[in-house]
This record gives sequence, C-alpha cells and structure tokens, in this order.
Amino acid sequence: MKAVILSALPGARLLDITHAIPPQSIRHAEVVLRGSAFAMPIGTVHLVVVDPGVGTDRRPIAVRARGLTFVGPDNGVLGVALADPHAQTVVLDRLELFRRPVAPTFHGRDIFAPVAAELAAGLALTDVGTPIDDALPSRLPRATRRDACIEGEVLVADHFGNLLTNISGQWLDRQWSVHIDDRPLRWVQAYGQGVAGELLVLCGSDGFLEIASRDASAAHQLGRHGGMRITCTRER
Amino acid sequence: MKAVILSALPGARLLDITHAIPPQSIRHAEVVLRGSAFAMPIGTVHLVVVDPGVGTDRRPIAVRARGLTFVGPDNGVLGVALADPHAQTVVLDRLELFRRPVAPTFHGRDIFAPVAAELAAGLALTDVGTPIDDALPSRLPRATRRDACIEGEVLVADHFGNLLTNISGQWLDRQWSVHIDDRPLRWVQAYGQGVAGELLVLCGSDGFLEIASRDASAAHQLGRHGGMRITCTRER
Amino acid sequence: MKAVILSALPGARLLDITHAIPPQSIRHAEVVLRGSAFAMPIGTVHLVVVDPGVGTDRRPIAVRARGLTFVGPDNGVLGVALADPHAQTVVLDRLELFRRPVAPTFHGRDIFAPVAAELAAGLALTDVGTPIDDALPSRLPRATRRDACIEGEVLVADHFGNLLTNISGQWLDRQWSVHIDDRPLRWVQAYGQGVAGELLVLCGSDGFLEIASRDASAAHQLGRHGGMRITCTRER
Repeated sequence: MKAVILSALPGARLLDITHAIPPQSIRHAEVVLRGSAFAMPIGTVHLVVVDPGVGTDRRPIAVRARGLTFVGPDNGVLGVALADPHAQTVVLDRLELFRRPVAPTFHGRDIFAPVAAELAAGLALTDVGTPIDDALPSRLPRATRRDACIEGEVLVADHFGNLLTNISGQWLDRQWSVHIDDRPLRWVQAYGQGVAGELLVLCGSDGFLEIASRDASAAHQLGRHGGMRITCTRER
Repeated sequence: MKAVILSALPGARLLDITHAIPPQSIRHAEVVLRGSAFAMPIGTVHLVVVDPGVGTDRRPIAVRARGLTFVGPDNGVLGVALADPHAQTVVLDRLELFRRPVAPTFHGRDIFAPVAAELAAGLALTDVGTPIDDALPSRLPRATRRDACIEGEVLVADHFGNLLTNISGQWLDRQWSVHIDDRPLRWVQAYGQGVAGELLVLCGSDGFLEIASRDASAAHQLGRHGGMRITCTRER
Repeated sequence: MKAVILSALPGARLLDITHAIPPQSIRHAEVVLRGSAFAMPIGTVHLVVVDPGVGTDRRPIAVRARGLTFVGPDNGVLGVALADPHAQTVVLDRLELFRRPVAPTFHGRDIFAPVAAELAAGLALTDVGTPIDDALPSRLPRATRRDACIEGEVLVADHFGNLLTNISGQWLDRQWSVHIDDRPLRWVQAYGQGVAGELLVLCGSDGFLEIASRDASAAHQLGRHGGMRITCTRER
C-alpha cells in the first residue's frame, strides 16, 4: 500500500497510526480512530483497511468529515467519520483510478491506496466516486442513559490491558458508582493513584470511561473483557 | 540503522515494510519481499537485514535488479532480486564506507545501513563493491509441475493466519482440485466467500496460491503449517 | 502524539525507534536508549513516554546532552542523557505550551509531544522550562568490579531472546570466565560461531556483554532472565 502511494505521489507523508489491530477487528479499528482520527491536521487522508469482506459486494467508499478524508470499506469501520452530520460520502466507482488488475483479496493495495493518493494529491471527493447516503454507520454498541442509571460495555482492551468502554465521560462524574459486572470500581484521575491489584475507573484520554489496574493489565486481572457490562448509578 | 542512514543522508525517506519477520527467518523475509519489493518506486534501496550469520564469513552484498537496489547478507534473503536474469551483484568490500569499528553482531548498522545510504545518495553499484556472480539464490523450496499434478508446500503463515505457498497462480485454475496434506480445499476468489470453519484456497495478492479460513486463521485451524504439502490435480 | 507534533510543526520528521517496549518498563526503554539515543543526528529530539506515573506528581522534564534533546517523565527513563556530566535539565512548567485540557492519563499527547515540537522548531531548553539539578538518574542496576571479579546482571531480553546485561565490554576480555547463575558461557564474537543449544557470551553492539544462543532464544533456553546474575572472573 505504501509502495502504491509513493509511486503515485512521491512527496506523500505516510504516518502509521497503529500496527496492532487484531485481524478482522472492525471494532478495534473504530476505537483507535475514535481516539486519534480528528487529532490529525486538516487535509489528512486516513486510509483504513480492516476489511474482512474484501472482494465481496461490500462497497469501497470515501468519507469527508471535519476537513479530513477517510478511505476504506463500507463495513462500519469509518463510523467515526460518518457520525458527523455534515459528512459527505461517495462510493468508489472510478475504475480508471484503480491499480489493475484488482486482486480480490487486497483492495487496500489496488483500490484504497491509489484512491487515497489521488485524494491526497488534491482530487475532490466527487472526482473519485458517486455520492451515497446509505453508508453503514458504526457498529459499536451504544451505552444507554436513563435518569440515575447508565449502562455500557467494554469495547476493547488496549496495549496496556486498560479496558476501553462506550460510556462518555461527559455523562457522569465521580459522584456516580461504577461497576464492571458485579465488581465495584474506584474512581481515580490517573493510573498511579491506584494501589496494586485494585480495579480502577477513570475518564480516559479519548473522553470515555476506562477500567484500569495500576502497573498491571486490567484485562488479565479480569480474565476476560469482551462485552463485559459497565453499570453506573448515581448516589443519592 | 535509521540513525546511521539519516546521519549520512538527512533527506532520506525511510519506509518500514514490516516489523514482523520472526527471528532468523530468511524464509519469511523472502516471502515478504516476493510480495512487496518490486512494487516500490524505481530507485528504491531495500535494506534487508535478516542475518543469522552476521559476523561469520557470509558475505555482505548489494544487488541491482529492475531499477531497484537491495543490500543485505549473502544468505538467500535477496533471492527475489537475484532471480532476475539481468541482476548485477557486488560484494561489499569498500571498508572505507563502513561505520567503524564494525560490530560483529550488527552489520545492519555498521555495513549495510551506511552502504545503503551511499547507494540512495547516488553511488553506483560498482562504487560500493566488486562484482560477483555466485551469490546464493533463494532458499525457498520450489513447487514441481508435471502434467496433471502440481506439488508444492506452505512457506509461511501471514499475520492473519493465511498460509502462503510456493505454487504460482498462473499454473492452474479453478478446474484443479487442491489438497493440503489429505484435506480438500474449496476454491474461492475472496476470503468472505467461505463459510465458517471451511478451508479455502485462492490466488493470493502476490500471485501464489494461499490457504485461508473465513474470519479465522487457517494456521490455527490446521494446528501447524511449516512444510505442509499442497497437491493440485487436474480434473478430467 | 504524532498528530500533535505534525499539527504544530508540519515539516517535522518522525522516526519510531521501537514499538516494543513492554508496558511500564522503564528499564527496557533505558536499555533501548542506551543502544540508540546518541546514534541519532545532532539536533534530534527524543520523545520518550514510558510513564507509569502519568498524572501524579512526577515531573515532566527535558534534558539536553551531547547535542540532543530528550523529553519525558522524571522517572529515570532519561537516565542515559542525565548521565552526561554536561547535561542540562529543565522541568516543563510553561503551561501555555501544553495542549489543553491536559488529560491526566496521556501527558505524552498533551505535554511531551507539544513541547517536543517546540524544541524541534528551535525553542531553547530554557524557553520550555525552569532549570533543575535533581532529576532522577537511571534506575538500571550497576555492575560491580573488584580486582579479578565482576558481578552484573541481565537487564532485559531483546527481540531475539538475547540477554542484555549491565557489564561493559571494556571491563574485560576473552581471558575472563563468565557464568550466568551457575552455568558457564563460551566466548564468541558472533552468534553464528556457536553450536546449537550452547549458551554464548559476546560483546554486544551496544558495548555491553550479551548472552545468546545460536539461531535460538537464550531467554527461552534459560526459562527466565529477569535479574539473572552474571559473574566474570579472570583466569590466572
């Protein structure tokens, strides 16, 4: 993919956000983008290829949102961009832009990378595809909020074993009690405020609640993490 | 290595192809280069340091093939370049180009990186060494083809657990039956055309047959992969 | 972090030294810097964020040593720079340089990256903080040397399973006998001079003794490595 981009646009600046998305994990990619996509400078093109359906009839798309452009499959992985109410989306149907022949197992190289290079070089969104309004939104489960109760879940564990959730830190404060499954969590502001072995909750740097353990992996400590329930109740 | 290159050539563009070659796996590096080396723009210098014999009498070499230059040990890892009938090869014997003293355990830093920087800066191949014609070719086992039977093997598993083989996709089509050891494989064009748990065969994006499993790791499913036999027979 | 740097300084060149520091391992980061920091060109800014105490009262600092600048937490991780007798250190207290609000769990993004960008753009050390002289030195245990006996220990295992120690190769030569715990090691100059299964000692490319096993992982072979004792005695 990098070779294709540099061949088309020798001056392109390439930046790897991560090498550590688990295979086929659209969810993990969505969470990484939630915390990083809009920190990039205006004009950045995000090339996002977590694409288990490559070669099937899922569409290749590009999305422009908040001054950034996203290129990837229409499988929800670009949900963070599509969530912007002013997002514009096109289906990539300008076959002349593709690398030929297109390998059915690597659209990253043959469709997404060459189109990303053209967008980075200045093509307009409508120069690379036809507008659509039915791209698949984020697949991330949403937390629910009702009066004095918020329910959400663990989305992924990060590199440190911190558990990242779908509960916005703006919805609550430290007056709320937070549990993971049946276990209570203690509020802290920083990891180092915990004591060894204690399960902590804090507002993470991406704005969402995060479960952690000081100098350790909360994921290992809990033995699992996928889908664990987080319950927040307001104290009276 | 990057520090050495940038110190010699501040404007160098550095691109990491992979951080995931298993230790000492010349084979794995060869397969990665098979799929990526010649996609890079003309003029690229490939610095390839999978070098278990570092510090012994294996030679340091550079190879020019199809407009690209390759620098690395003479242990087969540059086989993809040497396979070009017009490839030119030199042994790196211009000691004045090396970083001194040369550490016997890190020629990547002290020999290959400084020479790669000089080549990227414009030195000719013969400015960095003396021509040879006996560099070691690829160590990858070759598939055999006889009438209605092709026999090959699994070379490596990729990051997704797909099994990459040494059988060219140009040798056969979907009329052939393909087995891995004794297990039959079903032809698909794309991973997503499989059903869960089914072992699939397809022509991979590097032009060779590949064994896969939908949304899963064929390597895990088979429990092993090194050297597994692939047999292809033409149906009548 | 990269997004913050590029937003402030679009022409910045970013170079990743490693993606493989184990979580919270100040020690591992110190060893990586020992072998790489001063190979970088003069003027380089090292951004070092191994920071288990992020958000607590550990100070953010910057250090200038031998023409390079280091930015990171005051937890010993910058010990290699502080060991320079001419090193200059400041505590980062110019709040107007920070990204706001500062997340208590990610000073890398909100304090260290923006300050590193300013330093790379040309600010003087004293433009980003106030001089201090009590920054925490390296936490690496030191080897001891007495007459015909040197005692040290294994610090970390590298990617290949080689065991990196704290014993300088300048302290001894191949006339010395070296043991790890009670096991004797054979001196070689290069990994490939060993025979399979044999434990080797050599002077590593960073100038320190290293324990290795040919085409294998010494760490796996020994079953453990943290804190293993290395004893060197001079033969008579």
